[in-house]
Amino acid sequence: MNISERLAALRREMEQESIDIYIVPSDDFHQSEYVGEYFKARQFITGFTGSAGTAVITKNMAGLWTDGRYFIQAEKELAGSGITLFKSGEPGVDTIEQFLEKELPSMGVIGFDGRTVGVNTGKRYAQIAAEKEGRVFYQADLIGRIWNDRPQLPMGKAFLLGEKYSGENTTSKLQRVREEMKKVSANIHLLSSLDDIAWLLNIRGSDIAYCPLVLSYMMVYEDHAELYADEKKFPEKVLNELKKNEIFMKPYNDIYAAVKNINPTSVILLDPERVNYTLYQNIPKKAMITERENPEVLMKCIKNDTEIKNTKKAHLKDAVAHTKFMFWLKHAAGSDDIVTEISASDKLESFRAQQEGYLGASFAPISAFGEHGAIVHYSATPESGVTLHKGGMLLTDTGGHYWEGSTDITRTVAIGEISQREKEDFTLVARAMLRLMNAVFLHGCSGANLDCIAREVFWKERVSFNHGTGHGVGYLLNVHEAPINFRWKEGNIPAQVLERNMIITDEPGIYIEGSHGIRLENELLVCEDETNEYGQFMHFEPLTFVPIDLDALLPERMTEEERDMLNNYHRSVYEKVSPYLNKEEQEWLKQYTRPI
Amino acid sequence: MNISERLAALRREMEQESIDIYIVPSDDFHQSEYVGEYFKARQFITGFTGSAGTAVITKNMAGLWTDGRYFIQAEKELAGSGITLFKSGEPGVDTIEQFLEKELPSMGVIGFDGRTVGVNTGKRYAQIAAEKEGRVFYQADLIGRIWNDRPQLPMGKAFLLGEKYSGENTTSKLQRVREEMKKVSANIHLLSSLDDIAWLLNIRGSDIAYCPLVLSYMMVYEDHAELYADEKKFPEKVLNELKKNEIFMKPYNDIYAAVKNINPTSVILLDPERVNYTLYQNIPKKAMITERENPEVLMKCIKNDTEIKNTKKAHLKDAVAHTKFMFWLKHAAGSDDIVTEISASDKLESFRAQQEGYLGASFAPISAFGEHGAIVHYSATPESGVTLHKGGMLLTDTGGHYWEGSTDITRTVAIGEISQREKEDFTLVARAMLRLMNAVFLHGCSGANLDCIAREVFWKERVSFNHGTGHGVGYLLNVHEAPINFRWKEGNIPAQVLERNMIITDEPGIYIEGSHGIRLENELLVCEDETNEYGQFMHFEPLTFVPIDLDALLPERMTEEERDMLNNYHRSVYEKVSPYLNKEEQEWLKQYTRPI
Repeated sequence: MNISERLAALRREMEQESIDIYIVPSDDFHQSEYVGEYFKARQFITGFTGSAGTAVITKNMAGLWTDGRYFIQAEKELAGSGITLFKSGEPGVDTIEQFLEKELPSMGVIGFDGRTVGVNTGKRYAQIAAEKEGRVFYQADLIGRIWNDRPQLPMGKAFLLGEKYSGENTTSKLQRVREEMKKVSANIHLLSSLDDIAWLLNIRGSDIAYCPLVLSYMMVYEDHAELYADEKKFPEKVLNELKKNEIFMKPYNDIYAAVKNINPTSVILLDPERVNYTLYQNIPKKAMITERENPEVLMKCIKNDTEIKNTKKAHLKDAVAHTKFMFWLKHAAGSDDIVTEISASDKLESFRAQQEGYLGASFAPISAFGEHGAIVHYSATPESGVTLHKGGMLLTDTGGHYWEGSTDITRTVAIGEISQREKEDFTLVARAMLRLMNAVFLHGCSGANLDCIAREVFWKERVSFNHGTGHGVGYLLNVHEAPINFRWKEGNIPAQVLERNMIITDEPGIYIEGSHGIRLENELLVCEDETNEYGQFMHFEPLTFVPIDLDALLPERMTEEERDMLNNYHRSVYEKVSPYLNKEEQEWLKQYTRPI
Repeated sequence: MNISERLAALRREMEQESIDIYIVPSDDFHQSEYVGEYFKARQFITGFTGSAGTAVITKNMAGLWTDGRYFIQAEKELAGSGITLFKSGEPGVDTIEQFLEKELPSMGVIGFDGRTVGVNTGKRYAQIAAEKEGRVFYQADLIGRIWNDRPQLPMGKAFLLGEKYSGENTTSKLQRVREEMKKVSANIHLLSSLDDIAWLLNIRGSDIAYCPLVLSYMMVYEDHAELYADEKKFPEKVLNELKKNEIFMKPYNDIYAAVKNINPTSVILLDPERVNYTLYQNIPKKAMITERENPEVLMKCIKNDTEIKNTKKAHLKDAVAHTKFMFWLKHAAGSDDIVTEISASDKLESFRAQQEGYLGASFAPISAFGEHGAIVHYSATPESGVTLHKGGMLLTDTGGHYWEGSTDITRTVAIGEISQREKEDFTLVARAMLRLMNAVFLHGCSGANLDCIAREVFWKERVSFNHGTGHGVGYLLNVHEAPINFRWKEGNIPAQVLERNMIITDEPGIYIEGSHGIRLENELLVCEDETNEYGQFMHFEPLTFVPIDLDALLPERMTEEERDMLNNYHRSVYEKVSPYLNKEEQEWLKQYTRPI
């Protein structure tokens, strides 16, 4: 079936169900950042392959909403399909909600698969329908009915993360979660965020690319728990571990019926940002819902000492791999060897793969040369990928999963001699990264407070960058992990205070369209510093130990304090990494970590 | 009557009204920062004269809650009264609410004058009573019954602020407020914050020390308004102006009956932070209340161009007065002339009084020498005041009201040679103040984002200060004006974005108990800077032009950038102020604004 045929088939289903407007989001049933093939319903119905976007289909039109990252790609992919592109955020472009308000007829019906829609979004759709005396039909997986060759749900194996890696067993974690339940008088805690479940149960899986997670839901009761997942994914050993903690396996999809059958006298703790609309609607109306952030969110963000010790090991391996890569790149690229964006990325992956305990990439690697560096979400394809040449920079934003944790690092490396402008920009980014890394602050600060320490040097030059300066990092989990970040624009949500043993990235960047892009990213560990009459001071400790390319740096553009920051950092890089290098690499590293 | 007799009289009244616990706060009926003599009920019943504190009286005990600023003073003043001091914030000390929860008997009654209690506090008291199946009796002004020689309500004259000074007439302001009412479908806007009323009506008064305000309430309707205040305060001219805008005078206390008589079909816009509990309770239960910040709060915070032009004039006068004072101080103090904290303060006041259009001090002046500088809220008295001598610093935090606006400035000046430690601390404070003053930022930043720019240099040295780095300043109104500030700890309230034409202070400080205190404070104007593809950049422009004492500064402790900031600032100081000085003062200023 081509797109027109698919749309026609969908409209037949819509008519049968008396649905006026049907919405197809990009999400899976768990509000995951990455989704498996089974869940790519929006891609199926529009042909658009980008990661973000929502399709809205009426009787006589079909639209796709996506954001600025994808305008060009969407225009290409939608060409000839008859689907209208709605450029979200552009002036004069209606939001989906505004579109619904205009297009929904009186007493009309909005349809969607409520499992792919968050609680708050679902509520807004229902509100819009109610204002027209209409309703939502959220039990409608119409795409499922027409998608004949829909991929199967993934069947990745689950595995246990022993206490040697996790640092805390499930018995202890469950106890802490149940204490939080007790505080809000909840006797059921409904969970559907995959990383929260993986953390709680010390299990990992392989159902989603780059995310070692198992598709699952969970209900934690006061004395037992139910895990809704495909039992076939679980080796005997894992099942036994679960049983020990009175955790009982149930089929994945049975959660919906189970929630309907919740005792109406229950008090249910759930996180509306992390539960889908159908689950929420299935809860008996008489039951009491206590909405708050999942307690697992903060618990897993504060790493335990075992996780920290392991993470440092993972980062050292990562630093060795990355330094070897830089040595290779500086010698190979622009020489007679042909190095492309993709082959460079593969080479870096191969250095990581040589490290013990490496499990795979922690996210889709970015390897962007020259002007591609300015495209923040650039992904090299055989078509787009270019050959590296002298007089440009390669930006790599990559990371690995190890048994000892996950990494995320960005370096931008000069190939041959680069321009003065590029060096100025590189120096600005390095200064911002170093200043934030060396910040000292009082306990109580959030990333919203501290972001300005990195931004200040940019803003003085009247430049900026349109992404957060940093995000939390999971431990062999999602590489983007809530609830911490460095974002000065926090909206109305009070930003999470930075606590000891949290891990956050520090990644300012500069992007000059059509010319070059530079980003430098270290991971930082939040540490306690001195306590005195003013309170508990805190500082960061870098976890990433890979040189900042001195070929791209203008020391005279840095203050003495900033040069000291860089020299101290480079001294640590050499001390930590050089023992794992061969003689040639060591000499190179010595040179590239020399004091400036 | 002594305190014991007053407490006995109060307890007789409590018994008559069946009140178990009676609460006496420090507030007037308008949540004002400073209160007139009439409202000092808490002082009357306890003898404690500090500005902050709450008395709680039961049948057999009386307690006073106050904060760290006042522990020593309260201990002294309460001695022998039998009143227990509760040190708020100290470990193990119950809050008033915890005390009420413990002490209120079943079905007990909490009494207070609801006019002196904010809406949210009143609601919490009612909640505590309800949990004991008791109630609050908030109509009980028992102090009024026993305070025979209670001072009269102030009778300060009201006066008009012409458009030449206000920059916008009341007709226009009322129109803008009514547009905001319309947005939330309100047909009544109930106001009791004195500065909001003064701003809206372009009137000023003299009912409260340091605050040019008129005791009043207001109800704004769609087509007219009612002002509840003592008509005798208003000259004919002012009354005529009010009438022109369909604003009708009503007796001050009639507001309570008027609110009771509000049409129950009304929608009332009010600010629960700026309305007292009795007013709120008097609103008919069937009427709808829309709670949000008074629209006047943001409107008056964003000064208009006339106000800015005038404010610059006021600050120039203030700078001339303050520079003359510094010249005098540097010559007089520590010489044969005897200069005390109080005489120095009087001298500064006399220099201000020489300026045209000066109306008086904008707050109680702080003049603190040597170790007194470390007491943030120090107020010199004939008993405490010391004589200045060489080898110490005088901290003055003072300000004036002018027809052209209000000022707030702090300088710390070395008398003779000071210690290396004092110079190091002074330099740290100067660096922080200058860095924040020179910040560039993207529109959208709040003071919570930017505070770290000043704090960062402190935190690097593991020191801090326990007050905000800045606050908004009113225009011939309250010198502490909501809703802007520089405070990294903002709690749950989303901090106000800094907009063009807002005025905010920049006043870091360092306080070494028993030794010295240093604070430097400039007022800053929020200005628009370049707009480019990254957005609208903003910067600050100083309004205050008084030298930073170079005798106390260690230039070698500053970065080149920071020295440039100081030199640029001092160049402006000399350019602006020197034309108004005599030859001798000019030469002195030249020397004290020399480049370093």
